[in-house]
Amino acid sequence: MSGVVAVHVGAGSHSSSLKGEYKKLMRKACNQAIAVLRGGGNALDAACTATQVLEDSPRTNAGFGSSLTADGGVECDASVMDGHTLRHGAVGAVPGVRNPVLLARQILDAQSQPRPGGLVPPSFLAGTGAQVWAASNNVETCEPTDLIAERSQRIHEESLRNIQRLEEGGAKRRRYALPEEEEEMQGGLLDTVGAVCVDGAGYVASAVSSGGLLLKHTGRVGQAAVYGCGCWAENNCDGSGVSIGVSTTGCGEHLIRTMFARLCARAAITPEMGANISNAVTTHFLESGFLEGVHPRMAGALILRHDPQAGTNDLYWLHTTRTMGVCYMSTHDRKPQAQFSELAMEKIGMSVNLQSKSFGPPGVSIPVTTREEAQPGPSHRMAGEEEEEEEEEERGKSDSSDEEEQPG
Amino acid sequence: MSGVVAVHVGAGSHSSSLKGEYKKLMRKACNQAIAVLRGGGNALDAACTATQVLEDSPRTNAGFGSSLTADGGVECDASVMDGHTLRHGAVGAVPGVRNPVLLARQILDAQSQPRPGGLVPPSFLAGTGAQVWAASNNVETCEPTDLIAERSQRIHEESLRNIQRLEEGGAKRRRYALPEEEEEMQGGLLDTVGAVCVDGAGYVASAVSSGGLLLKHTGRVGQAAVYGCGCWAENNCDGSGVSIGVSTTGCGEHLIRTMFARLCARAAITPEMGANISNAVTTHFLESGFLEGVHPRMAGALILRHDPQAGTNDLYWLHTTRTMGVCYMSTHDRKPQAQFSELAMEKIGMSVNLQSKSFGPPGVSIPVTTREEAQPGPSHRMAGEEEEEEEEEERGKSDSSDEEEQPG
Repeated sequence: MSGVVAVHVGAGSHSSSLKGEYKKLMRKACNQAIAVLRGGGNALDAACTATQVLEDSPRTNAGFGSSLTADGGVECDASVMDGHTLRHGAVGAVPGVRNPVLLARQILDAQSQPRPGGLVPPSFLAGTGAQVWAASNNVETCEPTDLIAERSQRIHEESLRNIQRLEEGGAKRRRYALPEEEEEMQGGLLDTVGAVCVDGAGYVASAVSSGGLLLKHTGRVGQAAVYGCGCWAENNCDGSGVSIGVSTTGCGEHLIRTMFARLCARAAITPEMGANISNAVTTHFLESGFLEGVHPRMAGALILRHDPQAGTNDLYWLHTTRTMGVCYMSTHDRKPQAQFSELAMEKIGMSVNLQSKSFGPPGVSIPVTTREEAQPGPSHRMAGEEEEEEEEEERGKSDSSDEEEQPG
Repeated sequence: MSGVVAVHVGAGSHSSSLKGEYKKLMRKACNQAIAVLRGGGNALDAACTATQVLEDSPRTNAGFGSSLTADGGVECDASVMDGHTLRHGAVGAVPGVRNPVLLARQILDAQSQPRPGGLVPPSFLAGTGAQVWAASNNVETCEPTDLIAERSQRIHEESLRNIQRLEEGGAKRRRYALPEEEEEMQGGLLDTVGAVCVDGAGYVASAVSSGGLLLKHTGRVGQAAVYGCGCWAENNCDGSGVSIGVSTTGCGEHLIRTMFARLCARAAITPEMGANISNAVTTHFLESGFLEGVHPRMAGALILRHDPQAGTNDLYWLHTTRTMGVCYMSTHDRKPQAQFSELAMEKIGMSVNLQSKSFGPPGVSIPVTTREEAQPGPSHRMAGEEEEEEEEEERGKSDSSDEEEQPG
């Protein structure tokens, strides 16, 4: 059976001028993860590899290049889940760990190793204690300041100045204005990264990693570290026979209160999963009583559904934010497909933009992209527009090695 | 309508010789919380007051007197949930905060206050960052070592010696033996505290607080800090019309993987909630695929179900551990009722001991204690035995002020 890898660079507000760079990065992550699957690695290995590539980029809000806290530091949240063992490993607000996803993976793995005296291995470590655990368990640590990218520093300083201006000017404007020429700053707010994978054995896995909200308080933990909220992976999900992996993105506080990853997983069980996912996100997120008074409501998710009986893999991605960047590839594909989907400004936080891609059994031709909408009306740019941009870019940059298929 | 307060000192293995002291403490917590309700406080105020009393005791594994980490420190987890607003505040692995539950409460409250620049207020803070937040938000902080009780220090040292002996003697025995004369040490393993309350307006609230597992790694976060796992409070739960508050206890890692608080809340919705709770805990905890290979499976929960139409409040408590200590009181009662329920040694981690108490509309007489069992057979001592002990103690110590009803 074929394996599939899908990654995201978050639901947020990605700068148009940087989309090419994000796509290139996502393709690199997919290629490396597919190489892991082709080399005999499992879904969890692939999900971690993809997420590690995304963390290492200064462009994403994860690992190196994370958004800075109000104090000017970097603290990361990450978690991984293995649909086979149903184990979950998580780190929250951890400083000085180069790849938080690898620490989460180590914590997951360590749960199968007996500890002295029958002590229960932890599943969730936070703060400096998590960094200490990393150092004593062969996960690379560094100086906390080593994770500060120049771009993050610049955005941080500008944001602090904006807030100061706002405070001096009174409390009339509740959101700080971002200068037009610093459009990229907007991307720093929510762009968590993550991956969902299924391997040839039919096991699913997921990962999520985030530097958290810009100017967050030190110690703040977002959904990427919280069980059921940041990622989900469950073979034979709820006894349904299908296996589902989810990686979420958006405003962590909103995703925690709605247990967003598990919500998406449960919604994707039924055969009518497209409509069902849209309805579930509308009812249990956009209209949820758990988010009373919260506006706008920002979320995104990447959902992979593996049906072993039908031999199919269906990928869904959704967002209530302006943009979401995703990329996917099957072990049968020559190249990964990267794209950004977009929601109209006036629908941000109020509508779901849901898109999908089906991977059938080998040899069955499936349209490249299908799409659905939760809400009627012209809520977003056509996916086709993005597709064209994608292909153009592929042609223009085909000499770039990280876009090429890795040898199996 | 009457208000109800219920508290627990954890599902664990409480020393027989200390049960009297635990009961006295629980009665004090109930009395103070009932006084809050009678004084016009709401359910959340009452739940926090009760939990604060329990934290302040050196006997409980919460706040002062928490179990020590492997490094010999104290780090606490706590959370609170308000069934009215559905807001949740949580702290994980926080050092140097005298009452973690009050910090969780402050984090909950701060979510309704706008922050500069439209920044999203945090719902979950961990580690030293949480302590910094406390200090700048009028929540009492202290030296981390101020929370170390003499008893905790003694248990910690003995446990380290036991582990060392085990390691020197090879890996044959996986659990460290606790000497007979140190029976109280057993209580230090799981005895999280918490409270569930309903106020006269029919709003429910819950709280949970824990020092975590003895010898845990620094930074380890348990269920008491994790959304959906440590506590739950939801008015009109899942649209059912009934309101439910839950506070959980047990091995945090197991409770996280089964989202135990929310699981119990959902199970308590139906009118057949007794059988339904037992079945849900058996199916989704004791037999859950999410705990594959985990034995024994340790959990407990205190569940309060308020039915506004019937005008009734039903309290359930359950545990798969040897003992669980609970205490409850309605605003119509003169005195709180404290008791320990017990599960036979051979059933630990394998059966559910479920007990209940109904509070009817004012003037309606309801038996003091009913009980149910998840598993057939003589799984535990009779509740009546505990009741007698309770009453005897009440008589013997009636001069003790904290056992008397507080003036309303």
